[in-house]
Amino acid sequence: MSLGTVFLSEVVGTAMLLLLGGGVVANNILPKNKGAGTGFLHVNWGWGLAVFAGVLVSYKSGGHLNPAVTLGLVAAGNNEFVPGIAVNAMSIATYISAQMVGAFIGAVLCWLAYKKQFDDDAPAGAKLGVFSTGPEIRNPLWNLVTEAIGTFVLVLVVLASGNWGDSATKTPAGLGWLGALGVALLVVGIGASLGGPTGYAINPARDLGPRIAHAVLPIPNKGSSDWGYSWVPVVGPIIGGVLAGLMSGVLLPA
Amino acid sequence: MSLGTVFLSEVVGTAMLLLLGGGVVANNILPKNKGAGTGFLHVNWGWGLAVFAGVLVSYKSGGHLNPAVTLGLVAAGNNEFVPGIAVNAMSIATYISAQMVGAFIGAVLCWLAYKKQFDDDAPAGAKLGVFSTGPEIRNPLWNLVTEAIGTFVLVLVVLASGNWGDSATKTPAGLGWLGALGVALLVVGIGASLGGPTGYAINPARDLGPRIAHAVLPIPNKGSSDWGYSWVPVVGPIIGGVLAGLMSGVLLPA
Amino acid sequence: MSLGTVFLSEVVGTAMLLLLGGGVVANNILPKNKGAGTGFLHVNWGWGLAVFAGVLVSYKSGGHLNPAVTLGLVAAGNNEFVPGIAVNAMSIATYISAQMVGAFIGAVLCWLAYKKQFDDDAPAGAKLGVFSTGPEIRNPLWNLVTEAIGTFVLVLVVLASGNWGDSATKTPAGLGWLGALGVALLVVGIGASLGGPTGYAINPARDLGPRIAHAVLPIPNKGSSDWGYSWVPVVGPIIGGVLAGLMSGVLLPA
Amino acid sequence: MSLGTVFLSEVVGTAMLLLLGGGVVANNILPKNKGAGTGFLHVNWGWGLAVFAGVLVSYKSGGHLNPAVTLGLVAAGNNEFVPGIAVNAMSIATYISAQMVGAFIGAVLCWLAYKKQFDDDAPAGAKLGVFSTGPEIRNPLWNLVTEAIGTFVLVLVVLASGNWGDSATKTPAGLGWLGALGVALLVVGIGASLGGPTGYAINPARDLGPRIAHAVLPIPNKGSSDWGYSWVPVVGPIIGGVLAGLMSGVLLPA
Repeated sequence: MSLGTVFLSEVVGTAMLLLLGGGVVANNILPKNKGAGTGFLHVNWGWGLAVFAGVLVSYKSGGHLNPAVTLGLVAAGNNEFVPGIAVNAMSIATYISAQMVGAFIGAVLCWLAYKKQFDDDAPAGAKLGVFSTGPEIRNPLWNLVTEAIGTFVLVLVVLASGNWGDSATKTPAGLGWLGALGVALLVVGIGASLGGPTGYAINPARDLGPRIAHAVLPIPNKGSSDWGYSWVPVVGPIIGGVLAGLMSGVLLPA
Repeated sequence: MSLGTVFLSEVVGTAMLLLLGGGVVANNILPKNKGAGTGFLHVNWGWGLAVFAGVLVSYKSGGHLNPAVTLGLVAAGNNEFVPGIAVNAMSIATYISAQMVGAFIGAVLCWLAYKKQFDDDAPAGAKLGVFSTGPEIRNPLWNLVTEAIGTFVLVLVVLASGNWGDSATKTPAGLGWLGALGVALLVVGIGASLGGPTGYAINPARDLGPRIAHAVLPIPNKGSSDWGYSWVPVVGPIIGGVLAGLMSGVLLPA
Repeated sequence: MSLGTVFLSEVVGTAMLLLLGGGVVANNILPKNKGAGTGFLHVNWGWGLAVFAGVLVSYKSGGHLNPAVTLGLVAAGNNEFVPGIAVNAMSIATYISAQMVGAFIGAVLCWLAYKKQFDDDAPAGAKLGVFSTGPEIRNPLWNLVTEAIGTFVLVLVVLASGNWGDSATKTPAGLGWLGALGVALLVVGIGASLGGPTGYAINPARDLGPRIAHAVLPIPNKGSSDWGYSWVPVVGPIIGGVLAGLMSGVLLPA
Repeated sequence: MSLGTVFLSEVVGTAMLLLLGGGVVANNILPKNKGAGTGFLHVNWGWGLAVFAGVLVSYKSGGHLNPAVTLGLVAAGNNEFVPGIAVNAMSIATYISAQMVGAFIGAVLCWLAYKKQFDDDAPAGAKLGVFSTGPEIRNPLWNLVTEAIGTFVLVLVVLASGNWGDSATKTPAGLGWLGALGVALLVVGIGASLGGPTGYAINPARDLGPRIAHAVLPIPNKGSSDWGYSWVPVVGPIIGGVLAGLMSGVLLPA
């Protein structure tokens, strides 16, 4: 196993995540779609199953797809991400940069899949909403709290899944095939339960990579990329993920 | 294994349950949320997956998260809750007190995640509804019957799951990783099917802990905590759970 | 294993099926429920998870819960229903009579859980709809075809599940814990896909037992029990289930 | 194992797929159905569980049910489809012709299940929509892109599932019972996320076989079969599936 393989694996998985995750939002909020207006449970399932597909194609690297997961595993004191890949600045940078690149690529693929819908009339806010999250009530501090809590849940449960001692649920990140299913369902649940105020980025790469794509892609009437909010879904998830890692030793006794 | 570990495990699991379970209701019934008005199936999935996450993080204690489950296991004649933890007044009190503490903490976390939505305008009944259940047609006797029937189903099926003889579905409470998934789906089903009249507390801690949180938290225009109804979702589930335990020897032959 | 155990197991499982299956319809179509008007996908999940719970509590008898499944297994040429229970007139009668009794009991429990909603105002057709199915376009022949096709799918897939050769999916009826999950999902799918014209009885006991309950229970303004239609959801499923059993040898090569 | 068995298995599986897949659309978009107007998430679950049922009954041939999957497996360099069935022109033709025949049969069965609804008033476009897909914004090139991307995701994730190394998820197509569940969920996700613009054929047989059925069946006021669009959901999925197979060696390192 090399860092190059890890990089490729995380790019492919995170691109899959954003293609499907962005896609379900596009289907819901852009007009002239079969699923226009289907509602939030549709979005929750779409994102959850996007995680499922993303983890399934990134088995080599453990399917982090999320800097908050990577940093949470570090904070929890892991020595290796996957067999042969020690935790160090180089491997952390590899994971996170791959996640950013993959998220950008996935957002571009999503735009291509919905090209005619993006070319058509839709509110600028809806077009941005396919790429990145925004709050219902804008308040940086409390939006940060919401994102941190959601990501804390994600990382703590992922870490807990590794303790169920069933080989079918194990991977380097504590997840096997069933674990991939479990984390998918978990993301359905986090979205349903904690996605109301901010749209649950719970992943810095998921929000920032596509925001860059929104900024550079030639989308008619796309409006602002809302850079003023962009730090919240980056910092909040990192705080939540690291906190979950740090507290996992106490909250999840071996 | 010590009672302290059991206590911590049940606190963490029940806090997770109420954070996510309260969250999906907040998302649905408080305005200015991405999921406002999504509907009851959304609530059912949110609560079911809250159980999934809660059980996953409380593997040490068997993931009861519910006094009705604990008392149902006692009524069914179990000698141990988990290996090394005998069934006795001390261990029962440990489980139940931890569930109450965890439910309170989870409700507070949910309030923090939805802080700006709680600060905003919303009917007092909706704000209480995030914390505790209330009936559609108020009638203590029949509301009690509904809660007892729902909890009877929950505890009987949990006890039955332990008889499927597959190690992947086993835990001290008869559940493994797949069992955690199964009880999550079961709670989706109980909510969908039996949640209509009373909002399916089916768990004394789930209702009473958050009601106390509602009473003490500084929520604007929060209105009454409806203490007059508070005994129903405590007594009903206990009756249902104990009855399921007592009848399990007959209804579920080994 | 005795026929008495089989009888009890099928009574408990089918009662569970009807309590939860009737419940989700009550929640949807009777006013003053948390889930009133949630829609057909809610009903599909409710019935599917009712099957899940019902099968989980009737592990001793293989969780048929449905005369069409029992007769389909017979038509497929099975010699035993479960180890020690040979296929013969006596055992077939035991399964089917238990399913009828269980369905009646489940319908009564459902009525108790929704007692105040049944006492309240609601169209007579809605009150009957909680118990038994009725067609959208009344045409006995084509309604029969629809019920036969739905049940054919149910029994053929259940029989196929037994051929996947994985012990975790095996039971006397070809299903293990995962098989219980699979048949639950299958029933979600059959309902979603084939439930439109007639409301998918796909089970003679599920329709006839509750119709008898509707006829005898003291429900205000309950209206007719629609006996004129009652033979369709009995005969249609039997035709479909037996046909699936007979054709399984050809369609599902070992 | 013979090619005749493969043919039968794919016919049965693809017929099941189209019966249930067409059915959920009929239930949603034809009036006088229990599920009329339920919405797109209902359609997504219906199609996903149609895949589940279809794969479960076609275990002998690996449950391709889709020429794009068959060709994707070829492009990925497989030597055998299932043990004893080498990849060659004859076996490929067997799979694909069976899928076409099965899709036609399934569409006819779906029409029979919804016979009275088809005989009743409904827009011609809705009646065609039960059989075949059509775009929301008609643009052959971009519709082709959308179909190719959706099918690329399907085939890439199916190929990846074979690398999880868990026998419970293995079959000749890389899927076991859990794999059948996984591909079902994957199709729920692809539909939710990428089904907006074109209705996600992602399968040439799924679209062309039923379109032929639409053309020949005696449906009142059925309108055009829209042959002008018919090549898009054939060519797009083939491009996407083959591309996924070709790129799988790079994107999914062993």
